[in-house]
Amino acid sequence: MVSHFPQNILVAPSGFKESLDSNAVAAAIQAGVRRAVPGAMIRAVPIADGGEGTAETLATATAGHLIPMTVTGPVGQPVESHYAVLGGSAKGTGVVEMAAAAGLRLVPKDQRDPGATTTRGVGELIAAALDEGLLKILVGCGDSGTSDGGLGALKALGVGVLDADGNEVPDGGSNLAKVDRLDMTNLHPALKDGSAQITLALNPHNVLTGSKGVARVFGPQKGATPEQVEQLSDGFDNWAAVLGRDCVESARGTSFAHGVGTGASGGLGAGMAAVGAVLMPRFQALLDSGLAGIDLDDLLSKADLVITAEGAIDFQTPKGKVPAEIARRATLHGVPVIGLAGTLGKGSRDVYDIGIDAIASIVPVPMSLQDAVADGERLLIEATERLMRTLILGANIAAARMGRDR
Amino acid sequence: MVSHFPQNILVAPSGFKESLDSNAVAAAIQAGVRRAVPGAMIRAVPIADGGEGTAETLATATAGHLIPMTVTGPVGQPVESHYAVLGGSAKGTGVVEMAAAAGLRLVPKDQRDPGATTTRGVGELIAAALDEGLLKILVGCGDSGTSDGGLGALKALGVGVLDADGNEVPDGGSNLAKVDRLDMTNLHPALKDGSAQITLALNPHNVLTGSKGVARVFGPQKGATPEQVEQLSDGFDNWAAVLGRDCVESARGTSFAHGVGTGASGGLGAGMAAVGAVLMPRFQALLDSGLAGIDLDDLLSKADLVITAEGAIDFQTPKGKVPAEIARRATLHGVPVIGLAGTLGKGSRDVYDIGIDAIASIVPVPMSLQDAVADGERLLIEATERLMRTLILGANIAAARMGRDR
Repeated sequence: MVSHFPQNILVAPSGFKESLDSNAVAAAIQAGVRRAVPGAMIRAVPIADGGEGTAETLATATAGHLIPMTVTGPVGQPVESHYAVLGGSAKGTGVVEMAAAAGLRLVPKDQRDPGATTTRGVGELIAAALDEGLLKILVGCGDSGTSDGGLGALKALGVGVLDADGNEVPDGGSNLAKVDRLDMTNLHPALKDGSAQITLALNPHNVLTGSKGVARVFGPQKGATPEQVEQLSDGFDNWAAVLGRDCVESARGTSFAHGVGTGASGGLGAGMAAVGAVLMPRFQALLDSGLAGIDLDDLLSKADLVITAEGAIDFQTPKGKVPAEIARRATLHGVPVIGLAGTLGKGSRDVYDIGIDAIASIVPVPMSLQDAVADGERLLIEATERLMRTLILGANIAAARMGRDR
Repeated sequence: MVSHFPQNILVAPSGFKESLDSNAVAAAIQAGVRRAVPGAMIRAVPIADGGEGTAETLATATAGHLIPMTVTGPVGQPVESHYAVLGGSAKGTGVVEMAAAAGLRLVPKDQRDPGATTTRGVGELIAAALDEGLLKILVGCGDSGTSDGGLGALKALGVGVLDADGNEVPDGGSNLAKVDRLDMTNLHPALKDGSAQITLALNPHNVLTGSKGVARVFGPQKGATPEQVEQLSDGFDNWAAVLGRDCVESARGTSFAHGVGTGASGGLGAGMAAVGAVLMPRFQALLDSGLAGIDLDDLLSKADLVITAEGAIDFQTPKGKVPAEIARRATLHGVPVIGLAGTLGKGSRDVYDIGIDAIASIVPVPMSLQDAVADGERLLIEATERLMRTLILGANIAAARMGRDR
């Protein structure tokens, strides 16, 4: 290895969907770097995006562990789920992944009725983590399959959700219009006394009501008919009013109807905000807050080069995907960024404008997606080696030129 | 562009079979380099390998032209063929591509009888070039479909090939056993008086006779049965003896049986040697001799970086493929080499050992070979841009480090 080549390399990839989780991606990139730069100091930090795999990624990254747990699934079925207990600097933090209890993947295709699905399992996971004495709970809100405004989750956390006759309102977003009031008497004690703090990692652009509300934007995706969309939308209007009136003290003044992130995960944002949860843009929560046991700022201050990755790099990447978020932060530190992808799709060149200096595909030959997915690890290791060799060559050329010019 | 980045880039690729000829490959790489390094000085020299496309590549590279000509094909059919008249520093040189007159592709699959096919068309092209007054003839010997020891070619050049009764022996390798003597009386005057010089660019490992002779090694590939292999082999033994006895004065002492390259193109090497042709390893002829209008030595002495390419880079690359030959020569000049390929196949890492410093695939996403071939130009341009950006990033990192360390 030549001394003018980066010694400190930060590997900060997302997972490759259907092929490699973010830990496997990070390990493969690390192996590829080692092949080309045996002496490099590599810090591998798999990056969670708040969706599927978030709990496991963060557990692994912090040397924490997963607690398996059977919860109520989105259509009421028992679901094998889990939450994470983080280690390291994030000790005392639990991570609940909404996708693991109420994700779209857990909704059978023939039961995609967004008026009926429930976030109850999410509340069960949070309650269990609180029961374990975890006082910081991070909830990843990606990949949801529900539209109940967090109704089910609140009920699982002990909130009474009552209709005008004082009866418990059943689970499901289609019942939100009937809600008359909340009863916080039996709210989980750690939330009632404010000793625990829940933070939702979410997309802040999702709001609960109105023309850009979750019912109109996401309802159709989750299987709602046009009539259902209107019914859900009316239900969210009522729900926002009830939450605003009956929320816990610390949540007073929150705009449940239009506040940032209130519509995240089919309105889970609004519901959780009513019991005092903080709604935070997901990468702020996952990368910057320290909650997830990652201090990206510190990692970047020590890095000469960042390698990030995602299954696809394309026109969507700049819109809040992991490589873009890593690049934005690396740019602030003046650290160069390389992005690896299984697919360099349409618009992949756009990422040069957002701080990704170079990109590479892992695909070495014309091959089917199926074969690429099945052989992802080897392809990624070898592509990383090729990339690093190219980078080293560039460094050697520059060093030779500078030496000659001196 | 940064000043510590290579200013002088030599683009020296082969063609991508079935997709882009070497001129198109060179142009696409040049376009990709420009996207990333707008101010670079680029010298693009498409490299011929002696096989299909050699005449056209060299004509284009030297600003020469092609002369179209109908000749006798390998199974006796008329074939639209051509030879090149080179320009530039190679003015006065004609290039005959044996594949364009007697290539395997010109032998219909149902007529693959290696005892019957003829190199007559090759001789016709050479004779025409000599008639035009071209005094240097370069013959590319790759991709042949014949096994006649050059019998047909010699006849087309005016050599009488006679049996014991003094009758003309018919075309085809199966008739070589009957040859009794050559009559040089009517040999083309430019060869007879030694004013013209023919050079064959060939694989020197191919010899005419013996256990590694062309009949045993290539006969089966060209459709010979085991009996035919033996028959051809016997014929070549006789042919070598006749050539040795009746060749032109300047060829005396040549080992027609086992000499370097005598077995090239189904024995065309031996036949042509008998009329004074020089048999030269193909890349020596094409890259080093100056005959092809390329002075690679000079080009390399002025280059900071070489980009080469071929359809596939794999375990076969080190065995005399264009990228390997370019790399071997670049190494002597201490110039770094990058290789681009449509396919990075098994053993592609082996090329790191032969002077190719970095390699990259042009494939951006899992896709079919058919789609990759159809979209080759765009894929190559974009892959080149990615490669150059990576190289520049490496250079910038090194420059920043060196600046810091100073």
